[in-house]
Amino acid sequence: MSNLIYGHHPVVEAIQAGKPVEKVFFQQGVRGELEKEIRHLTKAYQIPLQVVPKEKLNKLVRGNHQGVVAWLALIEFQALEDVLPFVFERGEMPLILLLDSITDVRNFGAICRSAECAGVHAVVVPQSGAAPANEEAMKASAGALARIRLCRVRSLFSAVDWLQQSGVQVVATALTNRAVPLYAVDFTVPTAILLGSEGEGLHPKLLKMADRVAKIPQATDFDSFNVSVAAGIALYETLRQRLQ
Amino acid sequence: MSNLIYGHHPVVEAIQAGKPVEKVFFQQGVRGELEKEIRHLTKAYQIPLQVVPKEKLNKLVRGNHQGVVAWLALIEFQALEDVLPFVFERGEMPLILLLDSITDVRNFGAICRSAECAGVHAVVVPQSGAAPANEEAMKASAGALARIRLCRVRSLFSAVDWLQQSGVQVVATALTNRAVPLYAVDFTVPTAILLGSEGEGLHPKLLKMADRVAKIPQATDFDSFNVSVAAGIALYETLRQRLQ
Repeated sequence: MSNLIYGHHPVVEAIQAGKPVEKVFFQQGVRGELEKEIRHLTKAYQIPLQVVPKEKLNKLVRGNHQGVVAWLALIEFQALEDVLPFVFERGEMPLILLLDSITDVRNFGAICRSAECAGVHAVVVPQSGAAPANEEAMKASAGALARIRLCRVRSLFSAVDWLQQSGVQVVATALTNRAVPLYAVDFTVPTAILLGSEGEGLHPKLLKMADRVAKIPQATDFDSFNVSVAAGIALYETLRQRLQ
Repeated sequence: MSNLIYGHHPVVEAIQAGKPVEKVFFQQGVRGELEKEIRHLTKAYQIPLQVVPKEKLNKLVRGNHQGVVAWLALIEFQALEDVLPFVFERGEMPLILLLDSITDVRNFGAICRSAECAGVHAVVVPQSGAAPANEEAMKASAGALARIRLCRVRSLFSAVDWLQQSGVQVVATALTNRAVPLYAVDFTVPTAILLGSEGEGLHPKLLKMADRVAKIPQATDFDSFNVSVAAGIALYETLRQRLQ
């Protein structure tokens, strides 16, 4: 794989240079300066760190990895704090997607495709528990993953809080009692749409933090819409209100 | 595979008994009464017939297949002509999906899932060039495929014509010049939504026959929404108008 960097100094330099590191694999049992530096850097740059047996690293690369391998993402991550002012400056109405625990690569890719069609300004994913932005996601996104702004944050709670402080309403989609029909929410104001995984749904704390909770109407009580379909519907409703 | 029936009489009886036959495999080079009868029956019952080498049949079944194998569908097909009167009788507002050349099994399954959520009365697919209603489609539909009414028709042209004669408007979704925004179409009347494949789009003749052509608004000129997302959006818009 050409998107791997390994060895102490190359990995440290890649991280410090701001390269889009998807994940760092670190060898089980390695201690000392290397461990301290990698732990510190991955934390500072919000990069997931995974401790693995030496055999896993040996399988990943043929050279002398010195106990550390960095896996570069296909795309560059951007800082949410940089994206929002840029959107306001351009006089556009912010539209952001927040994805909680969406680990299915195809759903993630399909959501990115719809996001790019709908002109979403940023797709925000948490540092851990998110689908990887890999080739499969790229394919499922029909190439949209290379065009959208993807922001990786340490905590979705902080991201929701920061967005709300910045004047962006956060609308969660969920089938709870508190939920109002999607079309009853005003999407003509700056909005971030919060989507949860199909299995577990949204984190209760995120649901509580949201300014509005919206449900997509159904005619039957059968299951619910697939999360990538739900994302497309919420984006459509936003465009409809903003265009009509 | 337990969903295979083989041999002259068992296959003929299965077809005549109205079993949900997905497809009939017929041995290359076999002539005479068997061929005539199978050709006649598959045509009469609108079952796809595929002529294959003897080796293919030998692989499918271990017993003496006599040159003919029928593959049973997971689900029963229904006649569109039976479904519509039933819907009117119940005082419901007809909502039908017509799928043209949607061969991707996952998209087909995902569309069936959304259709069941939205209370679609029938999903109509053509006899040839449609995704099989198999286990993978069932999985992608989260089980919805076992609940929806699936109608297989010999010709989508005839189905469109019959629906229009029966007082159902046919709305095609496509990105053509003639297309109006989805929300500009009145979905509160009896409606069939016509969706085409992502690659080829809708058949030009179907597009021409449609009463309305609708496009899903986009904020960018990036590609288009995935067809299962587009189906979900069109169904949402219908529910929104009918509920609001």
